Amino acid sequence: MAEAMAGPGAAPGFAGEALGRFVAAADWRDIAPALRHEAKRAILNHLGCALGVARDPAVRTALDVLRPFSGVPVATVVGQGVRLDPMSAAFLNALASNLLDYDDTHLATVIHPTAPVAPALFAMAEQRGLSGAAVLHAFLLGAEVECRIGNAVSPGHYDRGWHITATCGVFGAAAGCAKLLGLSAEQTWHALGIAASQSAGVVENLPTAAKNVGVGNAARHGMLAALLAEAGYQAAPAAIEGPLGWARAMGDRPDAGALTAELGARWEIARNTYKPYPAGIVLHAVIDACLRLREELAVPPEAISGVVVAGDALLLARGDRVVRDDRDARVSIHHCAALGFVRGRAGVAEFGMPAVADPALRAFRAKVAAVLDESLPRGAATVTVRLVDGREARAAVTAPRGSGDNPLSDRDIEAKFRDNAAIGGFTGRCEGQIAAVWALEEASDVARLMELVA
Amino acid sequence: MAEAMAGPGAAPGFAGEALGRFVAAADWRDIAPALRHEAKRAILNHLGCALGVARDPAVRTALDVLRPFSGVPVATVVGQGVRLDPMSAAFLNALASNLLDYDDTHLATVIHPTAPVAPALFAMAEQRGLSGAAVLHAFLLGAEVECRIGNAVSPGHYDRGWHITATCGVFGAAAGCAKLLGLSAEQTWHALGIAASQSAGVVENLPTAAKNVGVGNAARHGMLAALLAEAGYQAAPAAIEGPLGWARAMGDRPDAGALTAELGARWEIARNTYKPYPAGIVLHAVIDACLRLREELAVPPEAISGVVVAGDALLLARGDRVVRDDRDARVSIHHCAALGFVRGRAGVAEFGMPAVADPALRAFRAKVAAVLDESLPRGAATVTVRLVDGREARAAVTAPRGSGDNPLSDRDIEAKFRDNAAIGGFTGRCEGQIAAVWALEEASDVARLMELVA
Repeated sequence: MAEAMAGPGAAPGFAGEALGRFVAAADWRDIAPALRHEAKRAILNHLGCALGVARDPAVRTALDVLRPFSGVPVATVVGQGVRLDPMSAAFLNALASNLLDYDDTHLATVIHPTAPVAPALFAMAEQRGLSGAAVLHAFLLGAEVECRIGNAVSPGHYDRGWHITATCGVFGAAAGCAKLLGLSAEQTWHALGIAASQSAGVVENLPTAAKNVGVGNAARHGMLAALLAEAGYQAAPAAIEGPLGWARAMGDRPDAGALTAELGARWEIARNTYKPYPAGIVLHAVIDACLRLREELAVPPEAISGVVVAGDALLLARGDRVVRDDRDARVSIHHCAALGFVRGRAGVAEFGMPAVADPALRAFRAKVAAVLDESLPRGAATVTVRLVDGREARAAVTAPRGSGDNPLSDRDIEAKFRDNAAIGGFTGRCEGQIAAVWALEEASDVARLMELVA
Repeated sequence: MAEAMAGPGAAPGFAGEALGRFVAAADWRDIAPALRHEAKRAILNHLGCALGVARDPAVRTALDVLRPFSGVPVATVVGQGVRLDPMSAAFLNALASNLLDYDDTHLATVIHPTAPVAPALFAMAEQRGLSGAAVLHAFLLGAEVECRIGNAVSPGHYDRGWHITATCGVFGAAAGCAKLLGLSAEQTWHALGIAASQSAGVVENLPTAAKNVGVGNAARHGMLAALLAEAGYQAAPAAIEGPLGWARAMGDRPDAGALTAELGARWEIARNTYKPYPAGIVLHAVIDACLRLREELAVPPEAISGVVVAGDALLLARGDRVVRDDRDARVSIHHCAALGFVRGRAGVAEFGMPAVADPALRAFRAKVAAVLDESLPRGAATVTVRLVDGREARAAVTAPRGSGDNPLSDRDIEAKFRDNAAIGGFTGRCEGQIAAVWALEEASDVARLMELVA
């Protein structure tokens, strides 16, 4: 590359340098089996979420818009039966995976770690014939960089209005793609710096499709950053933390310790969580408590005269609302309680418009009241049911299913995958798809898995 | 589109709504001849800048990286003899136009207005057979939206580390493409909101190629925003100014008056400026003063014993530096003064590495001293020359060539275009290219102009 593109030379102590060295030096043989397995869980959950929304107009529309702009079609768009160029496929698969916020959550940052990272890696691996182990390793490294950068600017970053899945996801995709490309530590540092100039996405847009564009771009741009760095493009040494760099421009001073402490020894993916319900994560305790009471009481909905849901201020702020559409339903205390007692389940179908309009659910929502209980921790809920016959029952949940203290089992994640696949209209291939993910570490390339989820 | 993608309905008083209405309702017949002409000046300057760097490795590398990801090749990449899909062509032409910061400058915001906007419009117009007048009109509207959003968050936005050409350019490209697509006021509002989730680029990266990625993305993403809005994608009503929206996330509260005051009556493009020299804009007064003294004194460089350049704090902060490469040269007081006296010109070639290494220029740079004069306004300079024979001469410049008070004439912009074209290796077609830009208003499509600059 010409000098016109050269940034200042290497210097010690930069965030991007430390992360670049970590990614470039990482060796798959050093990755513990539990971490390898967690990567597969994340990917199984991710692919299920993408399959589940394959018929969603937001996905179909993006595909229609992007298709004429796609280059050599070598990368699978999950559930669409088509291939696009790797950057376009990464965009669409990231958009789909996160569409309903039903994907995984790194609770410390509220990053959805897999959506912006894995799609870029699968697309690149499919194009280049790379192995399943290479993808798993690059995924672990990319998610680590993504979540550590998120840790370093949390909670101020999200609170200020940055959609952290998109803004930090681009770094994760860049780091992962850099690993797949075999970039040097310095090139990886540049890739992260180029990602800093492509980091975007605002919380204000979360209720709309504009959100999904940000998540899709994060995957696409991480790949672009790595490809440009491979070709010689450079970035400023302190693009992430410099006085006019990413973190400061976005209103933060990054916590350098959070970026690099115990790098390689402590892994953020170990704190990843998977949602059993496609609802806001603070609603999960409500659903669990209602499901438990339903089982204990074993009465029909008509036998219930009223339900009181107690939670912290965040639960009430997000969840105490009128339900007009599916987005409302996914964060409604009333709808979630109604599902628990009326339907006894809370899968994707229970949050669609038919469920919103279901007279039985509507009637039950009117029986639910939300009250503040400041003694309850974040994510907990207490549900009190009064029956028509005067009896009362109560259930308290502090560690709902899927949370860090009550993680979904592999079987749970498989069941969620099957549920998602069915919603997306795919039923016949589930067992083969699931088996292919669990066997990904041994796969000499990702082509077979991609074919199965195409 | 499905309800899952629908944002809240229309409401009055939103920034995006006002701008969307303005763009959708605008009529070319209402555009005054002076504005139409200014648009052509901006485009002539833009195309020259892009042609000038056609051989630059930053452009060639980006082309090589993007080519496999390009879809149907219907849009011209200026000076490369190839076509790509419209989004890829927009990316590359924006990157090239701004590469040396030799393009136009909206001084109030330091936005380079044309680079992120015009390439998206030409690419879309070439694909769809749209007229030259349609492009000129969309360009005026796009640049207006871009600069007004920039005004509304200046100067804090750039000072915080946002590369305003990229971060505001995406809105301009979105507005212009929305106009070309004939989007409704509401769709244009959504396009601007989708642009808000794609706005990125940090000042820390300015000395590196990572900067160029941000500018390329601005053009690409403005087009993407408009295409998605056309297909039904929506954004939050207050994506730009809401509590968790673009401006606040970026650290600003937008000045609503700056966004909409006299919209359609007062045009920001009338404040656009064009650089006669590919140097930092605060260096232009230094070059002008030295050129004037050279002409007045008519002595060889050896007859000069010393040069003292006086300027304000910004000139000294940016310009008093050791010159090691071409980036240094473009912001060096010493190099600019040396060019004035030794070469008598300051075109693109005078800032390349051969000029940096030229012994005559190097020797002259050592004769130049920079001193602070706080009485001088921003952008002014006083140059004092001492001759070996004891004589002294002085020149003061407050309104350098190309500034608002001393604008380049059409002939100057044509000469700059020829200079750029020659540097890029294109000489034979200049007169036809220039004539085609001046005649753009009458062109039934942009194909001929694009063919001429291909």
